[in-house]
Amino acid sequence: MLENDLILRAARGEKTERTPVWVMRQAGRILPEYRAVRAKLSGFKELVETPELAAEVTIQPVDHLGVDAAIIFSDILVIPEAMGLQYEMIEKKGPIFPSTIQSASDLNKIHVAQADELSYTIEAIKITKKELNGRVPVIGFAGAPWTIFAYMIEGAGSKTFSKARKMLYTNPELSHQLMEMITESTIAYLKGQIEAGADMVQVFDSWAGILPADQYREFSIRYISAICKSITEVPVTVFAKGAYFALKDIKNLSCDTVGLDWNMDIAEAKELLNNKTLQGNLDPCVLYGSDEQVISATQSMLDQFKGHHHIANLGHGVYPDTNPKKVKLFIDTVKGYN
Amino acid sequence: MLENDLILRAARGEKTERTPVWVMRQAGRILPEYRAVRAKLSGFKELVETPELAAEVTIQPVDHLGVDAAIIFSDILVIPEAMGLQYEMIEKKGPIFPSTIQSASDLNKIHVAQADELSYTIEAIKITKKELNGRVPVIGFAGAPWTIFAYMIEGAGSKTFSKARKMLYTNPELSHQLMEMITESTIAYLKGQIEAGADMVQVFDSWAGILPADQYREFSIRYISAICKSITEVPVTVFAKGAYFALKDIKNLSCDTVGLDWNMDIAEAKELLNNKTLQGNLDPCVLYGSDEQVISATQSMLDQFKGHHHIANLGHGVYPDTNPKKVKLFIDTVKGYN
Repeated sequence: MLENDLILRAARGEKTERTPVWVMRQAGRILPEYRAVRAKLSGFKELVETPELAAEVTIQPVDHLGVDAAIIFSDILVIPEAMGLQYEMIEKKGPIFPSTIQSASDLNKIHVAQADELSYTIEAIKITKKELNGRVPVIGFAGAPWTIFAYMIEGAGSKTFSKARKMLYTNPELSHQLMEMITESTIAYLKGQIEAGADMVQVFDSWAGILPADQYREFSIRYISAICKSITEVPVTVFAKGAYFALKDIKNLSCDTVGLDWNMDIAEAKELLNNKTLQGNLDPCVLYGSDEQVISATQSMLDQFKGHHHIANLGHGVYPDTNPKKVKLFIDTVKGYN
Repeated sequence: MLENDLILRAARGEKTERTPVWVMRQAGRILPEYRAVRAKLSGFKELVETPELAAEVTIQPVDHLGVDAAIIFSDILVIPEAMGLQYEMIEKKGPIFPSTIQSASDLNKIHVAQADELSYTIEAIKITKKELNGRVPVIGFAGAPWTIFAYMIEGAGSKTFSKARKMLYTNPELSHQLMEMITESTIAYLKGQIEAGADMVQVFDSWAGILPADQYREFSIRYISAICKSITEVPVTVFAKGAYFALKDIKNLSCDTVGLDWNMDIAEAKELLNNKTLQGNLDPCVLYGSDEQVISATQSMLDQFKGHHHIANLGHGVYPDTNPKKVKLFIDTVKGYN
């Protein structure tokens, strides 16, 4: 039994006493408590792969920021790794894959991942659930197949992801095969997270915004849709960053909640996505402002979402140099809003 | 007198025998003739600052690709440099500013640039005009104030430009002061380019897509509008990449042509921007495809723009590893389209 299930009720479109709130990347670099744990380790991946510590940093924002949900501390790139493509996380630079998928024969070096190949995250969720003891729900997550595909082809972050986009044109068959393998792995992984206790899950399509609409439909929406259809146990949130051109397709997904980035027009989203709970969408840079600015921008955002099922959040992950006091002020402003 | 003024007539909303075509970044790394010139030099900036050579690479795509316009070879960051902030262009990494604007006192180290401080570009345009001898028009260009501001604060490229966006919240006064200085410098520079012979000019707002709509209006549209109002001599194109949320504001600019990126829905843009010529918007990654794919995607794009004044282009600068034959095929397909 959960003491605070606001976020689950909001996701299901039920009435809530107030708007629930959490923050993308709330478990991470902004908290001194996180940095203290992280400093003892060799790197980011050691933290992801050590269930007790991953659980500890997952719970920190519940204790220190007062959020209405914990999101499991992990990374979307655990999926390609479980499929057989190792990655390294380079401090201040991002992920690097020494080996990538370039041809059909490269598909032989990878496989569809099973949940038990990601036992560190599954275990971390179990520990988190136990330690939270019902205080707030736990959110599981995974990357959307297109975003994972983009890293597996490109081998690193990129401004244009032109290698990954090139593959969609030059080898659509291989692209679909790989997307299917990622999708199957992701479904197994999310189901494992749910069995371990995740109360809802979010699918992050971080690189949604760089595809033309027709390709986004063919290579991304199709696979996100397969994931949404498979996950019937708990509410599902889809956050397709920058995919303003695909809101009509997103409306037809069998997900409960849609995340909005800070560019999205709230009034338009309310109208178009009248069958979904909406999540978001304060510009994370607002949290660099004065207390007055944080309060007023948060209230203005809440005013705009009025009359719609809403989970308050930022429109992007919180930036690492944000003062945690400002994050807490954002959260407190949501909680105190009438 | 110009032999081929298709692009100018299309920009002015006049009838043309066929759709004119050029390619963003057509003068550059895709051409072996460019790389031959570049290989003899110490770096990118030497090419920008040597008028004879800048003119030579400006004309190359007219000779080798058959485009309907030459765009002067230069960089948007010449403006901050002329204002007093030097930059370095690091191969494969992008620009770095050793010194940036962080506080009001930093404004004392810079000044409003005059066109004669950018005499190398002005001179390059004069040489280009002379050598082209009326074959096609010459396009001049500059960055939009928000994009230039973003580099002057951030000091380098960035995925989030969170430092630049932070400044808009924490010091709007300084932000407006700097925007005004950039705007004034840009107007002087564009007028200098026009006096030297530029037949039209384009304003690139490369980082338009990362601002919330209200900030985009306050900190970008306002200054682009000032530029558009000042440039009455020749047609003006505004390319605000990713600014789908601001099309209504862009409609009200006193520019002639609006560039569309490859995410933009052509039908919606035609309806909303019925007072503008539209430019774009093929996904540059299409040029990685087969000849059949290039032809069919180009024709499909032209079909969609039918009935609207249109200048064919990509929706982004051509990517450096694109085969020039595919670029030529794109251009020839536009020219042969009925």
